[in-house]
Amino acid sequence: MTDPVVIVGGDAAGLSAASKLSRDDPDREVIVFERGRWVSYAHCGEPYFVKGEVDTLDDLLSLSPAEIDERGIDLRREHEVVSVDTETRTVTVEGPDSAFDQPYGELVVATGARARTAPIAGSELTGAFTIHGLDSAAAVRALLTQPAEFAVDDLGGGDYVDKAELKRYGAMEPPETAAIVGGGYVGVEMAEALDAWDVDVHLFQRSALPVPTFGEAVGETVVDHLRERGVDLHLGAEVDELLGEDGRVAGVRCGDGSTLDADLAVVGVGVVPNVEIVDDTPVELGEMGAIAVDEYGETAVEGVYAAGDCAEDRHVVTGEPTWVPLGLTANRAGRAIGQTLAGTPTETGGIAGTAVVKAFDEECGRTGFVDADEAREAGFDPISRTITAGSRSGYYPGSEETTVTLVADRDSERLIGGSIVGTDRAAVRIDTVATALEGGLTIDEVERLDLAYAPPFSPVWDPVLVAAKVLNGAIEN
Amino acid sequence: MTDPVVIVGGDAAGLSAASKLSRDDPDREVIVFERGRWVSYAHCGEPYFVKGEVDTLDDLLSLSPAEIDERGIDLRREHEVVSVDTETRTVTVEGPDSAFDQPYGELVVATGARARTAPIAGSELTGAFTIHGLDSAAAVRALLTQPAEFAVDDLGGGDYVDKAELKRYGAMEPPETAAIVGGGYVGVEMAEALDAWDVDVHLFQRSALPVPTFGEAVGETVVDHLRERGVDLHLGAEVDELLGEDGRVAGVRCGDGSTLDADLAVVGVGVVPNVEIVDDTPVELGEMGAIAVDEYGETAVEGVYAAGDCAEDRHVVTGEPTWVPLGLTANRAGRAIGQTLAGTPTETGGIAGTAVVKAFDEECGRTGFVDADEAREAGFDPISRTITAGSRSGYYPGSEETTVTLVADRDSERLIGGSIVGTDRAAVRIDTVATALEGGLTIDEVERLDLAYAPPFSPVWDPVLVAAKVLNGAIEN
Repeated sequence: MTDPVVIVGGDAAGLSAASKLSRDDPDREVIVFERGRWVSYAHCGEPYFVKGEVDTLDDLLSLSPAEIDERGIDLRREHEVVSVDTETRTVTVEGPDSAFDQPYGELVVATGARARTAPIAGSELTGAFTIHGLDSAAAVRALLTQPAEFAVDDLGGGDYVDKAELKRYGAMEPPETAAIVGGGYVGVEMAEALDAWDVDVHLFQRSALPVPTFGEAVGETVVDHLRERGVDLHLGAEVDELLGEDGRVAGVRCGDGSTLDADLAVVGVGVVPNVEIVDDTPVELGEMGAIAVDEYGETAVEGVYAAGDCAEDRHVVTGEPTWVPLGLTANRAGRAIGQTLAGTPTETGGIAGTAVVKAFDEECGRTGFVDADEAREAGFDPISRTITAGSRSGYYPGSEETTVTLVADRDSERLIGGSIVGTDRAAVRIDTVATALEGGLTIDEVERLDLAYAPPFSPVWDPVLVAAKVLNGAIEN
Repeated sequence: MTDPVVIVGGDAAGLSAASKLSRDDPDREVIVFERGRWVSYAHCGEPYFVKGEVDTLDDLLSLSPAEIDERGIDLRREHEVVSVDTETRTVTVEGPDSAFDQPYGELVVATGARARTAPIAGSELTGAFTIHGLDSAAAVRALLTQPAEFAVDDLGGGDYVDKAELKRYGAMEPPETAAIVGGGYVGVEMAEALDAWDVDVHLFQRSALPVPTFGEAVGETVVDHLRERGVDLHLGAEVDELLGEDGRVAGVRCGDGSTLDADLAVVGVGVVPNVEIVDDTPVELGEMGAIAVDEYGETAVEGVYAAGDCAEDRHVVTGEPTWVPLGLTANRAGRAIGQTLAGTPTETGGIAGTAVVKAFDEECGRTGFVDADEAREAGFDPISRTITAGSRSGYYPGSEETTVTLVADRDSERLIGGSIVGTDRAAVRIDTVATALEGGLTIDEVERLDLAYAPPFSPVWDPVLVAAKVLNGAIEN
């Protein structure tokens, strides 16, 4: 008898693989080991749950326990895979009651990533959070709620939540001042979420601008907008330490010695891939520390696959391995591996690094190479131009400034990346740029794209076309 | 001395050519002959001017008279070019005072299109309009305004409007019932515009569904939505005649003999290219009756170019000539010809037939081949699938149903077209499909596009990706 497919990790990549495999090959035995209690949840929705726009934790579950059962997936929560032996094709699992060895036919490593806290001291303090996982999101919301209005069951999540911990936070006085450390996605989304609770928000960003992967033009717009919305921005400010008092967060200290009092701290300084379980195996890691895989998601060891935030992907523009831990690619790669394991070899697909983030009313998007240094490192000779154009015909109500940056390689004249920011349907327009990257279009071809025009939706020359026109002109001269 | 570049027609294509040429080669003499009084106006904005969302006619002018002067363009309004002699390189022009011959070095025919009224009798009646040009749009708005509130100067347009005609309409009692003949762009946009004035709107569409070029899925959604908004739809109903009483519209008669009383009629049954001035020349027309051009917009006669609604374009998917009279391509082709004439040969770019239209709250988009018969005629073996998915993460407020149809060629598995409809940022998403057409992507590649995901803007699987996944599955099975 064939040993089962073992999947380590029950979130986007793991459960996508399990679902697809169960559907396409119902006879194949699949076991999913998840070390926590939560599976298949919408990580990206956490700030909106904290804000209160999303009611309960249950809303964030992509698959309910019943749906998982229906799909015939043998899911074991609170089972941690602690080691892998690729020689004997066995994983060692620590369950709630005992440890055991589980042989596998094929193995899918979908262990995700964890929030980075180093090198910031003090992140174990009460009132310090990373917003990576439903438990921390629930705890922040409990803390933000007035004790008189708090009821643990309002948060949802049934038996999966740690009610004692949430009640402890729910009983505390809500914070007045929050220090958010890190101005990436989590930072700007949490600024919006905390502002909605009338907390004074201070955002600390090490570099000169927030959302640095979105480039300068987006960063500058976000700075203006966050300030307009009352967020206190500390730019070029590196937080070294969360300060505590009686075990509770009381403030932050920056590298220059300055301090700020704060009774809530959110640390969002990036994630690191969870790759420890393959440490003593021939499975290889890539340059960025994530698991190296081929175009089918298979690692250096035959029969061992990896997908999601713990694994590399292939960059659409360079064809080279890269690590960009985001939700769509995790789902897609997991699904592709499930299909491959069911007998239809399926590529996991490339990644352009497309990302969008909402900073209050500003919609920000980016894809491909935005940063000139990164483009040069990848072997390009980047040239970029930034323009601002209306989102609709100028005479039509609701037209808003939309700022687009496009980046091309001077030599090949190929589009290699871009960013966008604006308050009117800006985010979705980054898909035009992402699709052009997949198509390998030159900036000339982008300039001639037959994009949609109608006064309520776009000016005659869509902002992306205006940017292409200007960049093309710059290349020609 | 070189004879001047003569441009016939002062709207999108003509003035784009003139502007670009003047900018790139300021020494070259350019004369633009426009037979009417209006130049460079936003045709697509007319329904919104009628509705009242756009205040004045002046708002619809892309270039003010002063801007045109600044660009050094020699523009002659009310000068009609009545014939062209390509042997002697001369056009005959009828001006307000006299007729004269004008020699040209190069000629750009940018004569546009006109609203079709045939075979519907009675369109000369007072109260019958085609909404093709600012004069008719202004007249409808004058008619809709209560006489006591009407002031001709409120409409703007300065000396270019026919004030006597507008005052005549302004003095009439506003209509109670409107019959819109034709359910294309103009029809659905005018339904929204007239509804805003509390007119009872009846929309007559010859085929079974409105906006037929957008395909069934869009058409069905628009039907439901128009009915919800109180529009009386008459589908499969061919209007033969506008009925009159004392020279004023009093109703419509359909092919089946049924009649409807109405005191306003809007006819929007398509446009025909204005190609008569090249009738007796070797300039050739294409199959659809528009002027045939090469990839630089040059006609069969050297030195004679054509652009905009009177000319053909090359289809992005087939590479074959096609005629899709829309604003962006007119602007783009005109600009490209201006650049070519200034010494830098520039292709006018292909057309995918991308179009978007707003039907009250529904945003509709289409690109490429949507209709199966048209796809077959072009040599494809079309296969299509339609899906409905959320516009945002299901748990995020404001997610709305978005319906996407994608069409592929079964043999090559190449994407050849698509449509979209929904109330939340649906229109802009058609650009993803249009860009994929330009890139020649297979449906497999579309399925693996790295599109943007964040809960406020898109679900993990963007509706376009869901459609690609389903269509790809259908092709594989």
